[in-house]
Amino acid sequence: MTTMTSSNTAVNDTILQREDKDGAVYLTLNRPDKFNTLSEAMMTALQCELDDIAADPTVRCVVIAANGRGFCAGHDLKEMRATPDQSYYQSLFRQCSRMMRSIVDLPVPVIAKVQGMATAAGCQLVASCDLAIAGRSASFAVSGINLGLFCSTPAVALSRSIAPKRAFDMLVTGEFVDADTAAQWGLLSGVVDDADLDAAVEAKVATILSKSPAAVRYGKAMFHPQRQMALEEAYDYAGDVMADNMMNPDAGEGIDAFLGKRKPVWAQPGH
Amino acid sequence: MTTMTSSNTAVNDTILQREDKDGAVYLTLNRPDKFNTLSEAMMTALQCELDDIAADPTVRCVVIAANGRGFCAGHDLKEMRATPDQSYYQSLFRQCSRMMRSIVDLPVPVIAKVQGMATAAGCQLVASCDLAIAGRSASFAVSGINLGLFCSTPAVALSRSIAPKRAFDMLVTGEFVDADTAAQWGLLSGVVDDADLDAAVEAKVATILSKSPAAVRYGKAMFHPQRQMALEEAYDYAGDVMADNMMNPDAGEGIDAFLGKRKPVWAQPGH
Amino acid sequence: MTTMTSSNTAVNDTILQREDKDGAVYLTLNRPDKFNTLSEAMMTALQCELDDIAADPTVRCVVIAANGRGFCAGHDLKEMRATPDQSYYQSLFRQCSRMMRSIVDLPVPVIAKVQGMATAAGCQLVASCDLAIAGRSASFAVSGINLGLFCSTPAVALSRSIAPKRAFDMLVTGEFVDADTAAQWGLLSGVVDDADLDAAVEAKVATILSKSPAAVRYGKAMFHPQRQMALEEAYDYAGDVMADNMMNPDAGEGIDAFLGKRKPVWAQPGH
Repeated sequence: MTTMTSSNTAVNDTILQREDKDGAVYLTLNRPDKFNTLSEAMMTALQCELDDIAADPTVRCVVIAANGRGFCAGHDLKEMRATPDQSYYQSLFRQCSRMMRSIVDLPVPVIAKVQGMATAAGCQLVASCDLAIAGRSASFAVSGINLGLFCSTPAVALSRSIAPKRAFDMLVTGEFVDADTAAQWGLLSGVVDDADLDAAVEAKVATILSKSPAAVRYGKAMFHPQRQMALEEAYDYAGDVMADNMMNPDAGEGIDAFLGKRKPVWAQPGH
Repeated sequence: MTTMTSSNTAVNDTILQREDKDGAVYLTLNRPDKFNTLSEAMMTALQCELDDIAADPTVRCVVIAANGRGFCAGHDLKEMRATPDQSYYQSLFRQCSRMMRSIVDLPVPVIAKVQGMATAAGCQLVASCDLAIAGRSASFAVSGINLGLFCSTPAVALSRSIAPKRAFDMLVTGEFVDADTAAQWGLLSGVVDDADLDAAVEAKVATILSKSPAAVRYGKAMFHPQRQMALEEAYDYAGDVMADNMMNPDAGEGIDAFLGKRKPVWAQPGH
Repeated sequence: MTTMTSSNTAVNDTILQREDKDGAVYLTLNRPDKFNTLSEAMMTALQCELDDIAADPTVRCVVIAANGRGFCAGHDLKEMRATPDQSYYQSLFRQCSRMMRSIVDLPVPVIAKVQGMATAAGCQLVASCDLAIAGRSASFAVSGINLGLFCSTPAVALSRSIAPKRAFDMLVTGEFVDADTAAQWGLLSGVVDDADLDAAVEAKVATILSKSPAAVRYGKAMFHPQRQMALEEAYDYAGDVMADNMMNPDAGEGIDAFLGKRKPVWAQPGH
């Protein structure tokens, strides 16, 4: 039961495709000839969809994918060079950072589906998602340094995903890391043969869709904030979230189903 | 020279065994038919022993082990469902979090000895220990999500042990991770063949017991708090701890023994 | 085009060699008969060179290497035992911590080149560098615990480089970890056959020297501070740094060269 919705203008539709399927939203970067760069228009389109998803109680999972041979090549360099103005750049990076944080703050899990090169802010996009599955031929670099522009905002996401020496090495050399290495370092949650990428992402989506929508939302909402807290504060916060979760009918249903050795039936929000 | 002490009531003794041996305390979860769930009684028994150990200057190392095929299956679901009240749940998770933090705050190292499945708060227990050694057939999951209950408090410990994408994947899928993978991710400090688990834990205990009791305590006390500090603050704190440690007779003895190429003789606190 | 400069006294020159080569500074610990211990004189010599480098806009990269079979055995134990006074120890560890933080705060990348054993504060030195490349026969331990002195200040750097259970295991056992394991854990950014260590470090230096000096400095300056910030603050900070970087002529040159498919020509500060 697949439905195509179009919550954007026709212009955005051309650069960012959205497909809704059983509670999963697939956002597909669609400027393959430009290696899906994060132009202002692309970031605006992504922000628009993320804001829409954040307000939609029926969405349960998001996949960020891309068309073409590359996943995402980072910022649009021609666009950046066209306005050599510091306050423009501040506002550009603020826009990008806001979009990346919207992924972290989104109330549902976001999976990066990486089929090709992810560089600079494209690599940051992968690091910013909750989960990331790549085809074995995908590769990763924070390559701004090759252009005289250290990937400072990508460093924020990358250094929160992998060990610091590995992050700094990638940032200061701009060198590519292959998908198996990225998985071994924890930048990816999974790597599969290219031919199996669709199936692997579908399986992960199906797994998430099989869970209680409410419980997944409790978890996504608490996971990132608690990482920034001291241990005692984190536990107080997590305990309160978990008590709320226990009062949600899905927890009662889930535990009763488990004890009764039957399949649980989750409440479907928005339906 | 093994002695069995009993600092708990007879009731608790049946669910949590304690053995003291040469300064090491072995706490063994003993409800194998219930997969050693962290019932209120089990958490109370653990808290009681941890408080006792925290106040005992002769203890030098703790092992948390379990009887039966499972290590620990997390909370007692029937007990949880019996009192569907939010303030009860808040207090239950507070009790659990306090117990987990008591492991972190304990003045001596705590080793998890994992012989079987460790799920939900059972997996959190492994993550909360300073060291964890598992038999190769052990497995790990934060599986509350399968019951409509995201493992929020386990997420606190897990996300401080392993890379965030791996932690989130485990939390949102509830899927099992085998012991070799858990070791590769850093959730375990060691993995051995099942037949070698006893020996591996004994060897680790013997190694710790061979060190200066005072120095081990200085280290355990400073390790976790400094992780939460900014770098400069952490160094100021660690430097002061190390200066205190240098003024302890064991440091003088240890350095003199090293320079004199002889075996050090450590002070035995409480003796 | 190699030049030997001598910014220290003759005394320090004997224990710490400095070679300047095309913007890279090689600092070589040179007390091989003492396993290059961090005596007060050695720490003073290192601090002096680090302060000099921090103030020199022509330096672009630093390598910390060592002569002899060992990389660095940590503090000078005889010297430590000669003044058994708490305020002396506090000041000694403060001196050491300041030197380690000077590496983190240095405006250019620092590479540890590890050819042998790195123990205690020697292992901390490796952990404190931005990058670390070791020969396969090198090994790593925080072995103070064997002397009754828990490596508390090394723990600060180590626990910020590798997973906590691995760090605590090394600290409480004092056991050696080989170079391949250290690389797998993220303590090293690279490991090579001993015979290839010179070439591997030279290649890394050449890579860094091929980048925009300004961009590398923007990156080194922001990388460590942002790790200590909450996500939103880190992004605000990183975005401002990146906007500054974009206004630097090297970013314009780098992007224009990339778009024009030619080699960029970076500004050479101080020339």
